[in-house]
Amino acid sequence: MKAEIIAVGSELLTPFRTDTNSLYLTAELNQVGIEVVHKAIVGDGPDEMRSSFQHALDRAEVVLSCGGLGPTDDDRTRGTVAQLLGRKLIRDEATYRKIQERFRRFNRAMPEINARQALVIEGADVLPNPRGTAPGQWIEARGRILILLPGVPNEMRGLMELEVKPRLARLGVKQRLYSRDLRIVGLFESEVDQRVMPLYAEYSDTETTILATAGGIQLHPRIWSADPAYAQARLDELVRRISLVLGENLISMNGEMIEEIVARLLTENRATIAVAESCTGGLLAEKLTSISGSSAYFLGGVVCYSNELKTNLVGVPPELIAAKGAVSSEVALALAEGIRKRTGATIGVGVTGIAGPTGGTPEKPVGLVHIGIANEHGAREKSFRFPGDRERIRFFASQNALDAVRRHFLFPQRNQ
Amino acid sequence: MKAEIIAVGSELLTPFRTDTNSLYLTAELNQVGIEVVHKAIVGDGPDEMRSSFQHALDRAEVVLSCGGLGPTDDDRTRGTVAQLLGRKLIRDEATYRKIQERFRRFNRAMPEINARQALVIEGADVLPNPRGTAPGQWIEARGRILILLPGVPNEMRGLMELEVKPRLARLGVKQRLYSRDLRIVGLFESEVDQRVMPLYAEYSDTETTILATAGGIQLHPRIWSADPAYAQARLDELVRRISLVLGENLISMNGEMIEEIVARLLTENRATIAVAESCTGGLLAEKLTSISGSSAYFLGGVVCYSNELKTNLVGVPPELIAAKGAVSSEVALALAEGIRKRTGATIGVGVTGIAGPTGGTPEKPVGLVHIGIANEHGAREKSFRFPGDRERIRFFASQNALDAVRRHFLFPQRNQ
Repeated sequence: MKAEIIAVGSELLTPFRTDTNSLYLTAELNQVGIEVVHKAIVGDGPDEMRSSFQHALDRAEVVLSCGGLGPTDDDRTRGTVAQLLGRKLIRDEATYRKIQERFRRFNRAMPEINARQALVIEGADVLPNPRGTAPGQWIEARGRILILLPGVPNEMRGLMELEVKPRLARLGVKQRLYSRDLRIVGLFESEVDQRVMPLYAEYSDTETTILATAGGIQLHPRIWSADPAYAQARLDELVRRISLVLGENLISMNGEMIEEIVARLLTENRATIAVAESCTGGLLAEKLTSISGSSAYFLGGVVCYSNELKTNLVGVPPELIAAKGAVSSEVALALAEGIRKRTGATIGVGVTGIAGPTGGTPEKPVGLVHIGIANEHGAREKSFRFPGDRERIRFFASQNALDAVRRHFLFPQRNQ
Repeated sequence: MKAEIIAVGSELLTPFRTDTNSLYLTAELNQVGIEVVHKAIVGDGPDEMRSSFQHALDRAEVVLSCGGLGPTDDDRTRGTVAQLLGRKLIRDEATYRKIQERFRRFNRAMPEINARQALVIEGADVLPNPRGTAPGQWIEARGRILILLPGVPNEMRGLMELEVKPRLARLGVKQRLYSRDLRIVGLFESEVDQRVMPLYAEYSDTETTILATAGGIQLHPRIWSADPAYAQARLDELVRRISLVLGENLISMNGEMIEEIVARLLTENRATIAVAESCTGGLLAEKLTSISGSSAYFLGGVVCYSNELKTNLVGVPPELIAAKGAVSSEVALALAEGIRKRTGATIGVGVTGIAGPTGGTPEKPVGLVHIGIANEHGAREKSFRFPGDRERIRFFASQNALDAVRRHFLFPQRNQ
């Protein structure tokens, strides 16, 4: 079964804002076996809006719109669709009373304009909106299903959850979408793509999306099938093949992020952690503490930009900094050992590097990062050279520092 | 002049990825006076793609597509558009040689499939792609302009910049879009909206988009006009009115972010800064160091989750923590003064609070945050109660801590 999503709102046609409601809606539609084959984004121009709905009804069995149900002149979804279907707009009394009630509560008379939100298309199922004024509408016409939802994300989600999904489920679509959520660290998007690409042709009944986000690289393999056992087996096999080419860089197959994995490993091992970071500027501590409950294992961190602080707060010997430079394997190790000693943590992590864009030299270029990790048995260090701008270098450095902690627990016997 | 953007790619119809190329393209089109009235997102299904291009050509004078110019079977933009216009696909020899050359360099024979990327639509202006293989195409047909670009953002931008924009500028569109970029801290989106809303009706020839991002709240007032002087005067007036209702919470009118403003104020005042943060977990340091060149004024920071670290690294008296609690005005002040003293910075900032979701009590609920700021004359403190989840509370706390530094410089005489 095929669907089209129409996002209504002139702000969605500016350089500042794009439709994101459709990501949530697509996930929900896919879950009940409906594939999204087209999305349209329209403003409040009546011609463009009519044209969009018209063509969507030509192309898809389910047309789902969000937006344009407000009380103003510019909110044209109701009127446009009614006209297109040749149906009248009629007042829904329950909604009308609800709007009146709301104004009465604030001791104000209801402006006539607000009554518009109570208008529904003749023959529509009215879907009560628990979080707002304008109800959703479910209309069956010309062998199509047309669903009108408000654009406010919170209201749209409430209506989808309570009203739309149960109705869609009753359509009894057999074909379903099955998918996995793989997370990767320590590789660039192009490297992941290159390694996984050859598998796409072999598993041509599946489709895999690669995504580089602020949280790392994700792979989402998916398959449409009416046979759950086949679909799961096929995805299992594909994921196994992917894990062979990605090796230890594949950190989870269920969407677990590196921060969560590190949190789990620290908790399971009853370990505590403290960090001393230079070029990541607090990002490593921020990631560790983004997890609720992190106070159980995260003791604290020091962001030591200046050499003085590296010495005063973390105890890095000034002679070492003078001899090797602040950005060096030795200082990364000293930071890891120093913060561990100062805080009494089980594990200390030290990060030093050059995030740029200035400060690089031929010997120590922008992107050079040293990551040290220490426990009661000693310390290890790994050097990296990351590409990209300041933001990307800091991101890669924090990801790889978290990965050093993961590897410390998963492969303790090995020199990383 | 009206345009429609078509984003091609089946990954854009998954729950994971949405078109963002169109935001950049919209900004560029607006700059040369072209308004985007519709956007479409299509996969690689030939019927849907044909339908999208067909309807776009009906609706808009400029149709700009990105994606679907790769070498595989699924890359159907070229073929679909050629068929739609009733034109042939012909080989562009310069592109063909470029692809051959690329394979030769790697000592490999060119697979016949790759020759596809050299196919262009009969009569098209071929736009050489400096960053990739597939050229862009500029086609004039049926009184419309059709522009085909690749979907890889880097290639798309290169072609837009070098080839498309100069051609669009030559169309000589008189109407232009004028806009401003206002930044706000210390207010929630709904508060900003409520205060600014009454102005919308008064300035109905302008349109204002409100945007809540990871960097704070933005307002973008815009006006379309053929008269630059009128447009600028009108925006000046609207911005003045907005600044009256937002007051000191309006921090910039040129897109400058709070981090940049604080960086500028610290530099102009030859001041240095150090931070001691608890509930923000490194986020405040991270924001301060996200600015290139921050090592000139940022001395360092301490993320002190545990009470021991508040004492050991920042010198907060344990008796104070015992008497007032770690989350208290007094400890925020002690953190600000302590980190200032330990590091020798001009300004010290201390943040302590409860980010949740656990750890709240009736007296000290989740969302309670104390922010202290100290200089050589003493210290001040401000308490907040932020709504939302852990991530939002940490975000608001770091924004308001940065704002405390801004206010410290801009309104030094006043008790914040």
